[in-house]
Amino acid sequence: MSLPNYFELLGHDGQARTGLLTTPHGVVRTPAFMPVGTAGAMKGLHWREVRDAGADIVLGNTYHLMLRPGAERIAALGGLQRFTGWNGPMLTDSGGFQVMSLSELRKVTEQAVTFRSHLDGARIELSPERSIEVQRLLGSDIAMQMDECVRLPAERSDIERAMQLSLRWGERSKRAFETAPDGTMLFGIAQGGDVPQLRHASVRGLVETGFHGYAIGGLAVGEPQAVMLAMIEEVAPILPQDRPRYLMGVGTPEDMLEAVARGIDMFDCVMPTRNGRHGMAFTRFGQINLRNARHADDPRPLDEESAWPATNGYARAYLHHLVRSGETLGAMLLSEINVAYYQQLMRDIRDAISQGNFADFRERTRAGWTKGDIAPR
Amino acid sequence: MSLPNYFELLGHDGQARTGLLTTPHGVVRTPAFMPVGTAGAMKGLHWREVRDAGADIVLGNTYHLMLRPGAERIAALGGLQRFTGWNGPMLTDSGGFQVMSLSELRKVTEQAVTFRSHLDGARIELSPERSIEVQRLLGSDIAMQMDECVRLPAERSDIERAMQLSLRWGERSKRAFETAPDGTMLFGIAQGGDVPQLRHASVRGLVETGFHGYAIGGLAVGEPQAVMLAMIEEVAPILPQDRPRYLMGVGTPEDMLEAVARGIDMFDCVMPTRNGRHGMAFTRFGQINLRNARHADDPRPLDEESAWPATNGYARAYLHHLVRSGETLGAMLLSEINVAYYQQLMRDIRDAISQGNFADFRERTRAGWTKGDIAPR
Repeated sequence: MSLPNYFELLGHDGQARTGLLTTPHGVVRTPAFMPVGTAGAMKGLHWREVRDAGADIVLGNTYHLMLRPGAERIAALGGLQRFTGWNGPMLTDSGGFQVMSLSELRKVTEQAVTFRSHLDGARIELSPERSIEVQRLLGSDIAMQMDECVRLPAERSDIERAMQLSLRWGERSKRAFETAPDGTMLFGIAQGGDVPQLRHASVRGLVETGFHGYAIGGLAVGEPQAVMLAMIEEVAPILPQDRPRYLMGVGTPEDMLEAVARGIDMFDCVMPTRNGRHGMAFTRFGQINLRNARHADDPRPLDEESAWPATNGYARAYLHHLVRSGETLGAMLLSEINVAYYQQLMRDIRDAISQGNFADFRERTRAGWTKGDIAPR
Repeated sequence: MSLPNYFELLGHDGQARTGLLTTPHGVVRTPAFMPVGTAGAMKGLHWREVRDAGADIVLGNTYHLMLRPGAERIAALGGLQRFTGWNGPMLTDSGGFQVMSLSELRKVTEQAVTFRSHLDGARIELSPERSIEVQRLLGSDIAMQMDECVRLPAERSDIERAMQLSLRWGERSKRAFETAPDGTMLFGIAQGGDVPQLRHASVRGLVETGFHGYAIGGLAVGEPQAVMLAMIEEVAPILPQDRPRYLMGVGTPEDMLEAVARGIDMFDCVMPTRNGRHGMAFTRFGQINLRNARHADDPRPLDEESAWPATNGYARAYLHHLVRSGETLGAMLLSEINVAYYQQLMRDIRDAISQGNFADFRERTRAGWTKGDIAPR
């Protein structure tokens, strides 16, 4: 059964696409980067800063939120948007990935994953149906099907088993989603590891089931970038052209630029905030380590041409001092600087695609990163 | 020699006073609370939030800043205001208090304090002259004389020795300050522990030397509140009426309200940000522990009548969740909520003094704190 399509493709330039995805909480311009607000908060940023940086949509982690404060509690408090004060679109993952990576004593059966909470050891069962129920309780605009993600490298037989299970879980997720509120969406997730044939089989199965949009899962899990890009090249061309495509858990600015060039519309990653907490800044000069002594006496901002106040308004010497001193403000500023850079990159990518000069933009942007930071004073 | 007076007394109500203190970086309305930006940053707050909360002036810690990033470096970068982006008045302490409380192997002589840095163990000498030099390099609007502060309870002989040494250091500080930039100020510090006669002798000595303003030091160092208030009652009446009076390191909202009633004009304390990091909120209902389970399902804000967005805009349930989850945003929001409450209290105090109803305000405010938080839902 074909589901309504809330995605409008505005244009493309080569394989790169730009469009609008309409959700109950607002419109998302694509390509879009979704900052990750794991447990109902963006680490180091106020929600207004996330919005001001230009993010149209954020990601919430079902696993964290179902354990604390609990999905039923969030529903009683009016849903995630009301609870957190983030009044825009929100995508929630299924919880499956975090169950695999964070919990203990997990057991995967055809029916569900059973695991112990990393918070209090409570035994919890997460089925595709419960995952959809939890995401609905959270008030998600875009829900993800539950899937099983295999870390690479892995045996082909393991990859195939998880891919087939994910297809069956996708069908169950879709049935569970039938009573979801109008306008909300469910994305299927393509698995198949680094095996082209399995990726093809996964996409065929997903498209047969039919989703509002399609994600590529099981990448950025330990494989080289070349493998990731090769898999996108296998998958993107056979995904429905009129539906949004989301590359999960990616990535660096370069990963995203290359994925957009191969037809991807949406991304999420903790990298801007996590690296910010570790003293790293993403800029058009590449990644800059503020911990480095070269910045200690440098009065210049990270990037004087940036429109973001923290990027052009604070001396490198000050950011260096904050990072070295372990001051919270250092993590706060670098996290917002990085989220703002990711959003600026997405804005520039969208503009370049609209204007038909994406190839040129891609080359110039990569050259800037490769050239590296300005010389120390 | 009498120093210029930058303090204008606008009015008083009983012993409580309100006025304006003009510094090179702007005017400070008194009674004033100075949030503490220890190492060139306010923990958990952006500088714009400190300003928006209503703070006219902040405090920087000379000890921390001289060790890292270094006073000469900050001077080369244009001073603390330029370095940090806080463009308002800044008071710096002398460094002496932190030498006593944070460093190791300290040795106090008539000449100076010698100590080892808590950062790298470097051996450093801090004299009254070097303290003034460091504060000037930082670009301080109000410098503090170096003093020796004795923790209470203490022997009278120890208190007296430290008080006399502080007087001599005050004279040396003043001589060192003679070439300071126009408009900057130097405050003397009254010591004398909990011994009225020694407090009197300290004030007489300080006034003879002559400072732009006068601080009361050596309180809030372990003594009961009643002792602190009794010492203020000894000291305030004999301080010059036309000069600002600063009670160092104080305190709780109640401490400040009672100190204002006894003639104090300025305060500083890490309590709003420190307690905020530990899940505590200061409100007109008293101090509220957001970690408490009573808030877990409560959709109501901390104080719906507060004008501060974070105080009236977030559900107690959300703040509780952030605190329980150890999310940075919890510490950020509670720190700003507390700094905003402290500033609101100062604003209300100033208004009450101006309008001649401070006694009534004091009674109503205390009654609100005593009554405590609203009932759980």
